[in-house]
Amino acid sequence: MNILITNDDGWGTPGILTLARTMLAFGHVIVIAPDGPRSGAGACITVNKPMYLTRIDGAEHGLSEAEIYTTNGTPADCIKLAINALFDGDESKIDLVVSGINHGTNASINVIYSGTMGACLVAAEHGIPAIGYSYDDHAMDVDLSNAEKYIPEITRHLLEEKMPYGVCYNVNFPVGAIEGIQWTRQSRAHWTKELEPHTDAEGRTYYTLIGTFINHEPDATDTDLHALANHYISITPTSIDLTAYQLL
Amino acid sequence: MNILITNDDGWGTPGILTLARTMLAFGHVIVIAPDGPRSGAGACITVNKPMYLTRIDGAEHGLSEAEIYTTNGTPADCIKLAINALFDGDESKIDLVVSGINHGTNASINVIYSGTMGACLVAAEHGIPAIGYSYDDHAMDVDLSNAEKYIPEITRHLLEEKMPYGVCYNVNFPVGAIEGIQWTRQSRAHWTKELEPHTDAEGRTYYTLIGTFINHEPDATDTDLHALANHYISITPTSIDLTAYQLL
Repeated sequence: MNILITNDDGWGTPGILTLARTMLAFGHVIVIAPDGPRSGAGACITVNKPMYLTRIDGAEHGLSEAEIYTTNGTPADCIKLAINALFDGDESKIDLVVSGINHGTNASINVIYSGTMGACLVAAEHGIPAIGYSYDDHAMDVDLSNAEKYIPEITRHLLEEKMPYGVCYNVNFPVGAIEGIQWTRQSRAHWTKELEPHTDAEGRTYYTLIGTFINHEPDATDTDLHALANHYISITPTSIDLTAYQLL
Repeated sequence: MNILITNDDGWGTPGILTLARTMLAFGHVIVIAPDGPRSGAGACITVNKPMYLTRIDGAEHGLSEAEIYTTNGTPADCIKLAINALFDGDESKIDLVVSGINHGTNASINVIYSGTMGACLVAAEHGIPAIGYSYDDHAMDVDLSNAEKYIPEITRHLLEEKMPYGVCYNVNFPVGAIEGIQWTRQSRAHWTKELEPHTDAEGRTYYTLIGTFINHEPDATDTDLHALANHYISITPTSIDLTAYQLL
């Protein structure tokens, strides 16, 4: 099996190192990850700019068996780089894309902003089974041992499910003890109070993104946010088909 | 009515100028658009970097009545900047977001890569009615008179439809004569042969994105690609809820 790993936090973060080591048991691990943070990249691709691949030695991270590259591109670019630069355009040679482990949840509306999930959507476009793993804590020194413990079992199960074309999985881990695993839908929610104003050295106003998260349906029990709040691992099947069929 | 206009081709392109002039008949036009091309930005947002708003005088473009800003951010950022920097965080003061006119189609899988549609998804997250308009030709000197003719009628109709929360519209115009308007779903398709290798001055290999488009279902008659190929304007209702419900 050829397993392609990427993320949006960038190469070298604890999440991707943990994920890559976990995947060694599944087959040949190829990592193509951004050379720095790309949080919020969504499915952004690099248009009209050069993209480079740089080979990395993973020995110091216990990844000497893995084939590792970084790029100045986005997570979505990483999938296209792998297919075309490493596998001569033949996506069928990649058996699985695994993205993450993201430092921070990608539940609910965050899926549209997530570079971790953007890479999975691109993989699904190409018919490659894809799973995004995220952990509900932004800290870089978070204890990922629960994720490490459950990822092999979840990955095996989802591969056996045989994902239909155009679908990938958005898996989010709760903080702390694990009560179980729940299939969920994407919660309705939105971000508010999203700009912080500042003044630069020339006296000009600039803004940085912040935000307060508003869950529209805190009482629903079938959502990703409900699963996480109740210490369940959330698995949301996620589609590249955005058609709102209820309006057709 | 407060109408917010953005795009991903950047301020000053014929598409956004045409759209802004067309919208003057609907109410107060506010433009916040990227200061240059952001094609392929999807719903990418700017994280941990400063964003600026620069006021522009639209008089030379017949837009002296409009309030116009450019930003170094993405199309998705433009929606967040408008809500928070211009309307004090109150999204209900924006009655409509119109994005485009994109130079190039955003039909089929392109919706996930489109900055034009990324802005609409963010508007839909915030409960603001949103329509993305795209024209099936990348040329900057393309004749947009058909789009200009139909946009007021389509906009009025879609506003009357009262979009449910979380849904926006992806409207694509065909090249040439218009046979009619068709409600459609997103076609299944993928991009292949997506990288062009080059050698830089230091002898290193780099890649740029290109691609060949593969329609998976050329015989389907209810898709956006079929509508465009048959000279129909395609209207696809598009959801921010990516849950693959058929797998739950």
